[in-house]
Amino acid sequence: MRLSRYYAPTLKETPAEAEVISHQLLLRAGMIRKLTAGIYTYLPLGLRALNNVANIVREEMDRAGALEILMPAVQPADLWKESGRWDFYGRELLRFVDRHDRESCLGPTHEEVVTDLVRHEIRSYRQLPVNLYQIQTKFRDEIRPRFGLMRGREFVMKDAYSFDKDDAGADASYWAMYEAYARIFTRLGLKFRAVSADSGAIGGSFSHEFMVLADTGEDTIVACPDCDYGANLEKAEAVCPSAGAIPACPPAEQIATPGSHTVEEVAAFLKVAPAAVVKTLLYIADGKPVAALVRGDRELNEIKLKNLLAAKEDLRLATPEEVVAATGAPVGFAGPVGLTLPIYADRELALASDWIVGANAADAHMLHVDLGRDATIVSFTDLREVAPGDPCPKCGATLTFTKGIEVGHVFKLGLKYSEALNATFLDEAGKEQFMIMGCYGIGVSRIVASCIEQNNDASGIVFPPPIAPFEVALINLSPKDEIATAKADEIYAALTKAGIQVLLDDRDERPGVKFKDADLIGFPIQLTLGGKGLARGIVETKDRRISLKGELPLDGFFEAFMTWRDTVRQGWGLE
Amino acid sequence: MRLSRYYAPTLKETPAEAEVISHQLLLRAGMIRKLTAGIYTYLPLGLRALNNVANIVREEMDRAGALEILMPAVQPADLWKESGRWDFYGRELLRFVDRHDRESCLGPTHEEVVTDLVRHEIRSYRQLPVNLYQIQTKFRDEIRPRFGLMRGREFVMKDAYSFDKDDAGADASYWAMYEAYARIFTRLGLKFRAVSADSGAIGGSFSHEFMVLADTGEDTIVACPDCDYGANLEKAEAVCPSAGAIPACPPAEQIATPGSHTVEEVAAFLKVAPAAVVKTLLYIADGKPVAALVRGDRELNEIKLKNLLAAKEDLRLATPEEVVAATGAPVGFAGPVGLTLPIYADRELALASDWIVGANAADAHMLHVDLGRDATIVSFTDLREVAPGDPCPKCGATLTFTKGIEVGHVFKLGLKYSEALNATFLDEAGKEQFMIMGCYGIGVSRIVASCIEQNNDASGIVFPPPIAPFEVALINLSPKDEIATAKADEIYAALTKAGIQVLLDDRDERPGVKFKDADLIGFPIQLTLGGKGLARGIVETKDRRISLKGELPLDGFFEAFMTWRDTVRQGWGLE
Repeated sequence: MRLSRYYAPTLKETPAEAEVISHQLLLRAGMIRKLTAGIYTYLPLGLRALNNVANIVREEMDRAGALEILMPAVQPADLWKESGRWDFYGRELLRFVDRHDRESCLGPTHEEVVTDLVRHEIRSYRQLPVNLYQIQTKFRDEIRPRFGLMRGREFVMKDAYSFDKDDAGADASYWAMYEAYARIFTRLGLKFRAVSADSGAIGGSFSHEFMVLADTGEDTIVACPDCDYGANLEKAEAVCPSAGAIPACPPAEQIATPGSHTVEEVAAFLKVAPAAVVKTLLYIADGKPVAALVRGDRELNEIKLKNLLAAKEDLRLATPEEVVAATGAPVGFAGPVGLTLPIYADRELALASDWIVGANAADAHMLHVDLGRDATIVSFTDLREVAPGDPCPKCGATLTFTKGIEVGHVFKLGLKYSEALNATFLDEAGKEQFMIMGCYGIGVSRIVASCIEQNNDASGIVFPPPIAPFEVALINLSPKDEIATAKADEIYAALTKAGIQVLLDDRDERPGVKFKDADLIGFPIQLTLGGKGLARGIVETKDRRISLKGELPLDGFFEAFMTWRDTVRQGWGLE
Repeated sequence: MRLSRYYAPTLKETPAEAEVISHQLLLRAGMIRKLTAGIYTYLPLGLRALNNVANIVREEMDRAGALEILMPAVQPADLWKESGRWDFYGRELLRFVDRHDRESCLGPTHEEVVTDLVRHEIRSYRQLPVNLYQIQTKFRDEIRPRFGLMRGREFVMKDAYSFDKDDAGADASYWAMYEAYARIFTRLGLKFRAVSADSGAIGGSFSHEFMVLADTGEDTIVACPDCDYGANLEKAEAVCPSAGAIPACPPAEQIATPGSHTVEEVAAFLKVAPAAVVKTLLYIADGKPVAALVRGDRELNEIKLKNLLAAKEDLRLATPEEVVAATGAPVGFAGPVGLTLPIYADRELALASDWIVGANAADAHMLHVDLGRDATIVSFTDLREVAPGDPCPKCGATLTFTKGIEVGHVFKLGLKYSEALNATFLDEAGKEQFMIMGCYGIGVSRIVASCIEQNNDASGIVFPPPIAPFEVALINLSPKDEIATAKADEIYAALTKAGIQVLLDDRDERPGVKFKDADLIGFPIQLTLGGKGLARGIVETKDRRISLKGELPLDGFFEAFMTWRDTVRQGWGLE
């Protein structure tokens, strides 16, 4: 492709609308343009990057035996009512009525549609397993779309759905996808980590997230430096020693703690460590109040509490009015003693007694509380967030914390949708059974953004070769010079013939403009032709990843280039 | 691909929902499944056919210098209001409000979005021309979706938009697309014809439709057997000799024609030919009544009248009440004499006088009417439909009528959208000018259906090789036989290596089932291995297009196959 005939409108200024670096650079490099909130047009360069990701995803899905289909964007409400998600999904599901007043939605996911498809076709265990996938445009009406392609409303996903006749088969399908995902992210040239994840609203029995590592990531990944343990912070298990005998403590006693609302204030007032105080949090779970207790220096993990309660909706903290109604005291003085709500405590609180807790009375706390003796606790269980310094639950080494961006998710769904939509088959004995499902998503457009979050510098994007819209920028410094142009055309033809994607910058622009654009767009390899180098019989090279410049002889260029290109790719960890 | 691990659920029975052959066969061959009215899932075979079409479209668009982008499905109402189409487009535009109450729609076309994109990027004539295209899923809320992929609500289109600095450039862009379309349909192996077309609601100055020829087509194509003239019936010009001197006729005279409402009834009652009677039709155009006159043996072409009136909405016939209000008489007795509406006459009516017309009174007509003398006609112009026997407007030969399915449409749009959305550039003199636009659509999913309408027989689909989901069905009759299986695998590997798409039927099924499925799905080439043929050292072959069976030796199979394959492709008119 010749840049003079291309459409790559780069921008000098960073658009004010863009908060994160990938969004800024995608706009500046002329890869996307905003149509409306959270909705973007892919310009030619952006679409090439998107398709490069999609093609590697497709190849590995095919290799894993999944079969590509294409399901509709518009879905009938009936199926969502059948699965129960019509009422449950919330306002991210964009709903509308068509001209015949049929309720419909724009699909953010396709469990219902694919289960409906399969239940009408598959009758026998002999037709199982099957794994159907698509690469398709989805819509989620985010309340606050932002960060460009990172959290748009319209986005491209690969979603796959496996159907198996038994648990062993479902596990095999799951791990085949896990392996395919690992291959995909490896082939894309991305630094990533697969971590145990919460299976969340989509339901199901177990799942892993695939995270692209980036300092700007919204997710915190807890990983072990010594073993293969890795988990999303929401899921990571907080290790807790077994409870031994708890020393007896004096009778509970109420004291005045005027104006001490927070753990820090109480600890300071009483001159104790925050770890001596119990934090009592009141939540509303599916409309009903519950209390959760963690040690004063810990954070409650809401996801763990939600899963413990099997709550349908996300939990929310009780409002000040609800706190007063439940405890009889203003916010800051709730405590477990005498509280008539269901109370759940982090298991760490079972290790000791003599706690300081809120007294359910304004400006008052209680000392010498033994939770087993003085309160009614439904259960002591893992409710806290893992914190720096915590040991690995598998091997005991100290866990590390890194940031990541979720780009893939594999779920073993189990029977959730097959039961709801009655997707059955006849087993070997002729008995009707529910199919066991898995679902597997990859955010194709999100990968384009996250690869930039992971790979950029002050000059612009630093694309991994497999994702780059063109692997090579071939810069002709002297497009009006016949010799330079002939040489550039020759190199262009030779590389293109070898299947390498080359963008030839043949524009009548100053060298500085050309170099800036090539750096900004982030082609992994820059080749520069013209000026003194040409006179010396060389092509200047630049490995964009490490900004390393070099040169290759025009004489025997192709072979020398291919060898050097291998070095560049090895630097990316690519074969 | 091995059929035993594939998902191609063929059906023995024709589903009752399917009216047309392509819909029936797409369902029966396991290529699509209905999700809801006019909305389909593409199963693996259907998606492959769809992608085969899309890839050829993409290659030829790229070759013509168009640049691929991807625009969103969801579009903001604001742009449609700016172009004026929000009020004008009607209920086929699916509209909704998002969670922030922003009015939006699902895009059935992208003139507004692409013009908005370009107006923000292009400043100078030096950046023109540009031609941007996408292959994307569109939505049109058809009132009566039917015929499967032929007229669905959700469908895949290739749409391209060119922007030029002057008329000569716009014409060059137009003809480049015209040529690209001709190459596309030729490469797809389809019998097609490009015809002059009405530019319709989308507006613009001239256009051609690309029609796949099929007896089941909804469109009538008028073509000249001797020259290159071809037109959609709605557009075809009715040739009319120049008007000479008109003989004087007696004064007009009202007579009773009791119960004679139609031209046929009046002609029979008066014992004259229908051609002696003038047919007066009352239409409502953008809310106002008009009258149109054609000779009694002719059909009015509503599109010609609509274009003459520059009406925004489609015309509709006046209701009986409206006829009474306009003429003072019931339906069947309207006539031009004394009528106070604007009256438009077909130019054929200027060739003669002494017409019989309705008298605007119940059970009465008038004789001896000279339209110039007795009525007020706004204009005499081409308003009738071309009829069998009419001469070619270019060369005079007798026109032929064939049926076709519209699969592509090229428009020279002119300034319609650039003016409405203020898409301007600075010309060589630094003066602001509107860009001149063209738009170019191809119904990618519709091509899959129309290729089946054109190519099918009693056994099923007869796919042209470029569209077929697999070019070759390799049928192993004895999948439990080691020798047959080894040979089948060997042939499969050799053909796959040569880039030929092969589906290996390795199922444990009866030969009859395998042959029936291969015929139904319509693979252009069938190769059968096993049984007596294998013992004789041959592979049985079948050219699906002409149901011609043959055999090829296993010894030297690959070379013999490639030669025979060329013959099969030549039969399809392919290179």
